[in-house]
Amino acid sequence: MSDKIYVGVDVGGTAIKVGICNADGDLLHTFEGPTETSKGTDTILQNIAKYAQQIVEESSYEWEQVDGVGVGIAGFLDIPNGIIKFAPNLKIENVNLKAYLEQVLGKRVLVNNDANVAALGEAWAGAGKGIPNCVCYTLGTGVGGGIIIHGKIYEGYAGMAGELGHIAIVPDLEAIQCGCGKMGCLETVSSATGIIRMAKDAVERGDRTSLSLVPNIMAKDVLDAAKAGDEVASRIVNRAAFYLGKSMATLSVVLNPECYIIGGGVAKAGEFLFAQIREVFEKYTQDQAKENVKILPATLGNNAGVVGAAGLLLRS
Amino acid sequence: MSDKIYVGVDVGGTAIKVGICNADGDLLHTFEGPTETSKGTDTILQNIAKYAQQIVEESSYEWEQVDGVGVGIAGFLDIPNGIIKFAPNLKIENVNLKAYLEQVLGKRVLVNNDANVAALGEAWAGAGKGIPNCVCYTLGTGVGGGIIIHGKIYEGYAGMAGELGHIAIVPDLEAIQCGCGKMGCLETVSSATGIIRMAKDAVERGDRTSLSLVPNIMAKDVLDAAKAGDEVASRIVNRAAFYLGKSMATLSVVLNPECYIIGGGVAKAGEFLFAQIREVFEKYTQDQAKENVKILPATLGNNAGVVGAAGLLLRS
Repeated sequence: MSDKIYVGVDVGGTAIKVGICNADGDLLHTFEGPTETSKGTDTILQNIAKYAQQIVEESSYEWEQVDGVGVGIAGFLDIPNGIIKFAPNLKIENVNLKAYLEQVLGKRVLVNNDANVAALGEAWAGAGKGIPNCVCYTLGTGVGGGIIIHGKIYEGYAGMAGELGHIAIVPDLEAIQCGCGKMGCLETVSSATGIIRMAKDAVERGDRTSLSLVPNIMAKDVLDAAKAGDEVASRIVNRAAFYLGKSMATLSVVLNPECYIIGGGVAKAGEFLFAQIREVFEKYTQDQAKENVKILPATLGNNAGVVGAAGLLLRS
Repeated sequence: MSDKIYVGVDVGGTAIKVGICNADGDLLHTFEGPTETSKGTDTILQNIAKYAQQIVEESSYEWEQVDGVGVGIAGFLDIPNGIIKFAPNLKIENVNLKAYLEQVLGKRVLVNNDANVAALGEAWAGAGKGIPNCVCYTLGTGVGGGIIIHGKIYEGYAGMAGELGHIAIVPDLEAIQCGCGKMGCLETVSSATGIIRMAKDAVERGDRTSLSLVPNIMAKDVLDAAKAGDEVASRIVNRAAFYLGKSMATLSVVLNPECYIIGGGVAKAGEFLFAQIREVFEKYTQDQAKENVKILPATLGNNAGVVGAAGLLLRS
């Protein structure tokens, strides 16, 4: 029991997930507690520290074995300094999370954004295990992304690398405005939100679709209807897959990764969706840039965040 | 005179340029000899080796000071093994250039493609000196590119990273086919060839432009006419700048580099062109991804290749 362990923390608006990994990225133990966002910044910070200690106490490991603590969090961060500049869903502003946790826990702490951390988790110990250069997409409320180069997160100059949801990929004539203010972002069509929007638009304008019978349309309803052969739903899913595949064709002449990993709720549609993405990628990507390139579903599910957060300590 | 020196070789279809650099990327000495492409592969290889030796002999440096030899070459390469898989302009196929030169010269040899090497030259000792993360464009016959991450060339899985000329950026409705076979590549509009094509099209269809008086239109003619206020030429240049700027907006949410460097013949149009590129970049790029990001003209000109080739020895 003297091997080093790595604690990963995935801070969400509702719950804080904590995990213990070994040096191979195996998730040895997990724990989840409420974030208590409504109680304010101090409580959230205390909870993060408390849960990190608690998970080790509860486990068969010793605090001395903890090499460090990695934290993944949604928001605008100063990554090198571990500062949360603004985390809208937690209502935290200008807090040095790294300094706070290092003081309380007495361990090395690294902080990175949730999409990067999930990408690292998949690349390190999930679908991309053993592959040094991966690009990861998370198709959820938005489209998150992460670039893994030589096994490490690539953050870019201001931490904006891998913001794949904001690639302007939809042509002007059919583009709508993204939450970010720009037009035609990938996120407007390939996220769960984008799929739901397209479905609601179709129902509202009276398209003949089984979705008109669904009271509160979720992305899964659209994907299920498409699988069942509903033409309107099929076109929506195909559009989501089309622009995702096109963005990957672009990334293949920019980064030429060995592997794309796609996770998040929308990716649960599985091979039905992946086959469409691969077809577009195949069609639009340069021959040498696509040879032996893999497009894989994420395998860690909701654990990608804690695993990747723990991985920050070995892959930074 | 006991400091190490680094020999860079830039192999072109007509001439082979050789340079000696110090560890700071200062170009101390240059030499140029004919490639003699028509005499076949053996002669080309012998010339590369001969010129590399000759430049050191001619200089005030000793062969013992040579740390290694870097070579930049246009073509499809197996970069790690230094194999020329196919170099169309040299008519070389399946030759292990690295093994050949290492045997003849008795020094460490590194081989990379011409666009990557030019990018490294600019990033190491040119416009990007001191900046670790840069993206370089070369606007010539095609649009070349190179990605510099943590001071080194990023090649990707199959050496296709940084093939920026083949980003599909022109919308389908106005796209034409690129030499690569795909539609709407950046190269079709932002290269010298693209600019010339657009100008010839305009003249042929009878657009009123001063270019109709130019017998054999070159890219410089179009840029000069645009500077002089010719409306048709202005639109062509604006289109070239527009898609270049748009591709940079995309790269800023993928790689978020600190700096873009633009070189090649077209870039010689200077601030007239750069102002248009910056305007598009400014408009289409996310706020955090553009803050303090620089768009700079290349400074090494035709020496970027030899400097970057020498840099391979320190930055690989």
